[in-house]
Amino acid sequence: MSKKVAINPGWEYYEKLTFAPAVRKGNMLFISGINACRIDPDSGRSIAQGDIADQTAEIYSRMKEILEAAGASFEDVVATTDYITISENYKATAEVRRQYFGESFPASTGVIVNGLLGRGVLIEINAVAVLD
Amino acid sequence: MSKKVAINPGWEYYEKLTFAPAVRKGNMLFISGINACRIDPDSGRSIAQGDIADQTAEIYSRMKEILEAAGASFEDVVATTDYITISENYKATAEVRRQYFGESFPASTGVIVNGLLGRGVLIEINAVAVLD
Amino acid sequence: MSKKVAINPGWEYYEKLTFAPAVRKGNMLFISGINACRIDPDSGRSIAQGDIADQTAEIYSRMKEILEAAGASFEDVVATTDYITISENYKATAEVRRQYFGESFPASTGVIVNGLLGRGVLIEINAVAVLD
Repeated sequence: MSKKVAINPGWEYYEKLTFAPAVRKGNMLFISGINACRIDPDSGRSIAQGDIADQTAEIYSRMKEILEAAGASFEDVVATTDYITISENYKATAEVRRQYFGESFPASTGVIVNGLLGRGVLIEINAVAVLD
Repeated sequence: MSKKVAINPGWEYYEKLTFAPAVRKGNMLFISGINACRIDPDSGRSIAQGDIADQTAEIYSRMKEILEAAGASFEDVVATTDYITISENYKATAEVRRQYFGESFPASTGVIVNGLLGRGVLIEINAVAVLD
Repeated sequence: MSKKVAINPGWEYYEKLTFAPAVRKGNMLFISGINACRIDPDSGRSIAQGDIADQTAEIYSRMKEILEAAGASFEDVVATTDYITISENYKATAEVRRQYFGESFPASTGVIVNGLLGRGVLIEINAVAVLD
């Protein structure tokens, strides 16, 4: 069997964290919860801006980077979990999913949580992929 | 390796959604969060009725349909997550689990969330199976 | 393929539950949500004591027992999910993760939920491992 390998698309921020953006072992790839936080250039603070559809677009853009760093694609993603803090406008995130998954959708679960870690975060998404 | 395959026991409602009831790739089967929503014939609205044990029974009935459509069984289910909105009477769901799993139980996690997507939904359950 | 096998490090309490501490099938190991509940010798009631870092230390100690019972180690753990009821002092749990994972961290997701099952429980953690 292969060894456990941390997947990092070059995100330096993770070097001080105690988890990797994703981990591959054998043909299984587990992607950590991704949110849309960015460092605000004015305040220097990490904050997620925009509505839930904007944040979802940013999340899938980051997931694409992770998948590419793992030599994988959205075709390999078999499950996602959406953790959201508001359900208002949640349906607008479906368009982002169509854009990235085409018609090859994963299994998914969506739940409304009490809060997410990061200022302004409305949605966080993790994923599992089975690689070829 | 096998391709990713959407598993759908003939549930037309999913044709407009951006996720599948379940997805299989290789020997891994990921089952989406299932709740007990049904279309109410009077109002035409989707609603989950009954208490948490009733809803759990409906969920496991649906999970059985998914597993059969995938050529799998509850013996293959290795993990479930219960997302609940109330903890009152939660213990009553154990009887449903005994009915479906016999003595071959999965690993499980149960958490109380802030809300679930769907009117009247008290519990939503997802699952992972490893097929033979 | 291997059969589904329940993994139990000898925890008698689970004999009356409808889930196993962990389940292995093939090379996949799914670990149930673990919390820090113990029977209080005075009251006879199950309760989790201490702050979130204390409880996390207890959880990882239990996860180690599970992994050893499965013939596995933290090197095999590819994903964890932290369900927490408070975010205050959450960063203090990172030290516990360093202690158990060394530098070989898993993918992780952390969400703030509305409640956890068990008196005094501030954090519950589940995990997935891919065995050699």
